[in-house]
Amino acid sequence: MKTSERMEEIRLQLDEINLEILGLLSRRAELVQEIGELKKQKGTERFDPIREKEMLDNLVEANPGPFDDNTVRHLFKQIFQASLGLMEEEKKALLV
Amino acid sequence: MKTSERMEEIRLQLDEINLEILGLLSRRAELVQEIGELKKQKGTERFDPIREKEMLDNLVEANPGPFDDNTVRHLFKQIFQASLGLMEEEKKALLV
Repeated sequence: MKTSERMEEIRLQLDEINLEILGLLSRRAELVQEIGELKKQKGTERFDPIREKEMLDNLVEANPGPFDDNTVRHLFKQIFQASLGLMEEEKKALLV
Repeated sequence: MKTSERMEEIRLQLDEINLEILGLLSRRAELVQEIGELKKQKGTERFDPIREKEMLDNLVEANPGPFDDNTVRHLFKQIFQASLGLMEEEKKALLV
């Protein structure tokens, strides 16, 4: 296979993977919203640093590479923060 | 179902989704490494801002929510940057 053909093939695969990641991120965000709603009903704090640490530790343990562990932690912290951001927005909307 | 049972169920689902996202991010990173290798052989620049913009536009177009478009852009820019970071590391390793 020519280099340019292989590059095109990889690009198509990347496009597919991007959409799969987006789908999982969106599904994840919905679940976090639901858990936020349940926590609100129970009156418990939404941000749970122990649970976040547990999730990060699990991810680092399962990290197959090539990203190093710090990069995995960084990327998932961004994902967690964005999810908390969603709950904050909802809070703001309720205050308006 | 009790609230606490549903919360536990969601947590298990989040753990699964985290691992699925990690798997896709890792597969994605491998493909980016391969494309970087092919570009090196061809002598072309590895960072392609037009391709990056195209990928972000595709993702925003496909965004089902609940994340807003800016959050989707932000999260994927972090993913793209981490992948470029991998190529930079490899470059540094070659220079040593």
